[in-house]
Amino acid sequence: MVLWRELLGAQLRTARMAQKRTLRDVASSANIALGYLSELERGRKEASSELLGSICLALDVPVSEVLSGAAQQAFEREIAATVVRPLPLKSSKSDAVAA
Amino acid sequence: MVLWRELLGAQLRTARMAQKRTLRDVASSANIALGYLSELERGRKEASSELLGSICLALDVPVSEVLSGAAQQAFEREIAATVVRPLPLKSSKSDAVAA
Repeated sequence: MVLWRELLGAQLRTARMAQKRTLRDVASSANIALGYLSELERGRKEASSELLGSICLALDVPVSEVLSGAAQQAFEREIAATVVRPLPLKSSKSDAVAA
Repeated sequence: MVLWRELLGAQLRTARMAQKRTLRDVASSANIALGYLSELERGRKEASSELLGSICLALDVPVSEVLSGAAQQAFEREIAATVVRPLPLKSSKSDAVAA
């Protein structure tokens, strides 16, 4: 199952790294605990809508951009999950069972 | 502030209505209380990532599609919030104060 908090965490981390900012700096701007932001970035905690808004403001990134990036990432995971994998080679034993 | 739970609720409701399904039907498929799904659709409650996954499964809609729709809606709200509004006409009184 594609988990929203993991997609969101990756987006927030990517945006912060692109700005070469520290967890401490962004957490302070968003008025949240550094450890909490770290957990969010690692997809370990769910962010409330207000918290997401505050972090986006602190990063100066529109919520739409974070959602759009998460949508893209979700799409890639969904595609990867539906890729047809080659069937395992049958052993003579399983042939015998099937016969 | 653009609130994720409102965007999400609108997407879930739109997907359900498009399938002409009742709250009862979708809530039952997703194994959640009808009242809770109703609150989610109205943007009153935050959905955990697992819950979002279950509802998407129940609606047979990929998470990426819900996120992408929410991103589009967020973008439209952000644009609407930045539209330049005409300045109020100055009254002669405010002119006098400004002078």
